[in-house]
Amino acid sequence: MAIDIEKANATVVERFMEARPVATTMAKAIEVVPGFHENMLLHAGPPVTWERMSGPMKGAMVGALIFEGKAKSAEEAEKMLSGGKIEFSPNHEHMCTGPMAGVISPSMLVYEIENKTHGIKCFSNLNEGRGKVLRMGAYSQDVLDKLRWMENTLGPTVKTALEAMGGIDIRAILSKALHMGDDGHNRLDAASVLWTTQLSPWIAKTAKNTDTAFEVIKFLGENALSILNPVMAGCKTMTAAGHNVEGSTIVTIMARNGTDWGIKVSGLGDRWFTAQSPIVKSLYFPGFTEADACRDIGDSVITETAGIGGFAMANSPALVTFIGGVPKDAINTTLDMYEITYAEHKQFTVPLLDFRGTPTGVDIRKVVEKQITPRVNTGVAHKDPGVGQVGAGVASAPMSLFEDALVAFAEKYNI
Amino acid sequence: MAIDIEKANATVVERFMEARPVATTMAKAIEVVPGFHENMLLHAGPPVTWERMSGPMKGAMVGALIFEGKAKSAEEAEKMLSGGKIEFSPNHEHMCTGPMAGVISPSMLVYEIENKTHGIKCFSNLNEGRGKVLRMGAYSQDVLDKLRWMENTLGPTVKTALEAMGGIDIRAILSKALHMGDDGHNRLDAASVLWTTQLSPWIAKTAKNTDTAFEVIKFLGENALSILNPVMAGCKTMTAAGHNVEGSTIVTIMARNGTDWGIKVSGLGDRWFTAQSPIVKSLYFPGFTEADACRDIGDSVITETAGIGGFAMANSPALVTFIGGVPKDAINTTLDMYEITYAEHKQFTVPLLDFRGTPTGVDIRKVVEKQITPRVNTGVAHKDPGVGQVGAGVASAPMSLFEDALVAFAEKYNI
Repeated sequence: MAIDIEKANATVVERFMEARPVATTMAKAIEVVPGFHENMLLHAGPPVTWERMSGPMKGAMVGALIFEGKAKSAEEAEKMLSGGKIEFSPNHEHMCTGPMAGVISPSMLVYEIENKTHGIKCFSNLNEGRGKVLRMGAYSQDVLDKLRWMENTLGPTVKTALEAMGGIDIRAILSKALHMGDDGHNRLDAASVLWTTQLSPWIAKTAKNTDTAFEVIKFLGENALSILNPVMAGCKTMTAAGHNVEGSTIVTIMARNGTDWGIKVSGLGDRWFTAQSPIVKSLYFPGFTEADACRDIGDSVITETAGIGGFAMANSPALVTFIGGVPKDAINTTLDMYEITYAEHKQFTVPLLDFRGTPTGVDIRKVVEKQITPRVNTGVAHKDPGVGQVGAGVASAPMSLFEDALVAFAEKYNI
Repeated sequence: MAIDIEKANATVVERFMEARPVATTMAKAIEVVPGFHENMLLHAGPPVTWERMSGPMKGAMVGALIFEGKAKSAEEAEKMLSGGKIEFSPNHEHMCTGPMAGVISPSMLVYEIENKTHGIKCFSNLNEGRGKVLRMGAYSQDVLDKLRWMENTLGPTVKTALEAMGGIDIRAILSKALHMGDDGHNRLDAASVLWTTQLSPWIAKTAKNTDTAFEVIKFLGENALSILNPVMAGCKTMTAAGHNVEGSTIVTIMARNGTDWGIKVSGLGDRWFTAQSPIVKSLYFPGFTEADACRDIGDSVITETAGIGGFAMANSPALVTFIGGVPKDAINTTLDMYEITYAEHKQFTVPLLDFRGTPTGVDIRKVVEKQITPRVNTGVAHKDPGVGQVGAGVASAPMSLFEDALVAFAEKYNI
């Protein structure tokens, strides 16, 4: 059968761009996430065994089991995790995404993000803020206490507000925030305050009391990553809409687990292509160096997959103070990404480049031809469990992912 | 006496930059504004008589008298205004600022903005949002109804929240918002949501009921100019700190009333230098043309006087969709303003220009030498009373202001 790659790719990126994700409500993960069960933990990136698992992901899994009440101590949790009592499964196999370690456990509340154009629902958990947090592999008492507050207070309050207001249009917020210094991944300062500003009146109206309204609005407003998780799930609803189009060479999933990078390609079904995850080129927090860094980790690269994040970095010159480099690098990163993408986004634009659309839809053919791989703005976790974030920077996907995928594509389609 | 202009100017810009304005509370104008009285109306720009007054300013004065209960109709108000019953005085003579017509009447609530570094208090009224509003010269029933809601609900709720939280640091918000696509004058999308996000938890906690909290937070969050008035008063506390330094050639006030532009210079005391206000180079709203435009109007150019607004436009390439031009113009405007300013701001920076400080402190010597006048991002009001905004664009101050001031400077200091 002759395939029309151009037509297939045009279909895929059109779906990416037409997708309109809306945050509608929250629910317990076990109740809404497809294929989840009580003895499963979800995680970022491609599949991984306990033996090969990165430190921060191990730490987050330990914390999650204690949070679930399944283990009383780190020792007990590790025993369960290494003993085959718990099934590990990638978020992406369950229409989920999670930043960094990305661990989602059954009783955690997750956002439901619905792509209203294509009727696809994806999920992500609540964001804990910066610093010592589960997603960076920390699981001390204060981390667990905050998770419980999120479960009992933050989540239910946000859920009620979201339902009362009829949901929040994630794409509309991103379109605006990309003109407000955000890249849509590592810098979400604007999107997070826009999110908070839309939620706040409804929280004030519907929270169980004014003290709860106060603490929830304050927490959301002070967390510059409040909207990261709904943005990630929103981006997944975009790229999922373009997955499984026969003959397409567009990447629909990129994700890392701190050990491996993995990608999936629209025309290559459910096969993961994986390679060792790189060390992030990073600015380190005081007291840390590259020797402390876990390899690149997290599902957040779904933002780049959808055409923002590092790909939209020309919108975010101020971000270089956080991830390193000079403002000109920000513009050059976006320009480079045009080389390996199929389209310019219709909803997300770069004012500085005369409102050109962001580079959208990584084409494995172009990556291999140009020998340029996708660039990602990202946080860096400590390589050991229990520590937390140590820096932020820029990572490049391994070239072999795209080479392997291209070989598989040629085989599948007899090219 | 030999004067040291360089030293004087360094002192002035140092005060501009060291000033830290904080929004502390609100009060009725008559109770806090120096020199105000019951039969006075304050207005934007330099002094002006009823006969020479621009249409939108006349409209705003009519609306203010009806709002105050001093007149029952536009006819009655006009009769009072033209008959010498009401004294008109520039905001700037009373430590006030107001956008566009800038009319402040005795019973209006005003923000108190305190420069904590120098102990200077300035004031501005509440922002009405975009569209048909008093500051643009409209005074229909819906305009007056909104003013009353602002007086009875919005203002008291914000006042209580500001006091409970201990005030909001305007300079800190501006520093951040300038890295979020704002110029700090015509585009305040980011600053306004940061302002709303800081206020919201306290409004939720202290509003008289949840319905009030809901409507106030929603109004603030949806008004992309919520923070404009406190920003203007904040900028005035900066430049006022630098006024009246002997021997300084730095401009401390720029303001327009729709008829004239006026400036004051630090080393030239309380003398206004004035010239006819220009027509703004503007993008017009559908249905309007330059023939509908009032000449440049408003105290909002105090932002440029303090080193932001048009001067920081390199931070705001997306603004060209609202005021006209292409993104490159935004960068060039900032670069041009370095030619006529004395310093680069220590608190306000431009990421795209490698975090260079914004051009700060207009030096009348440089303006005349380079033949470049300050450029201002601004709204445009209809020239007739009662209509409202018709566009937005860029204005350049008349050169003669600076030439006249330089002559006066030479005379005063025997140069």
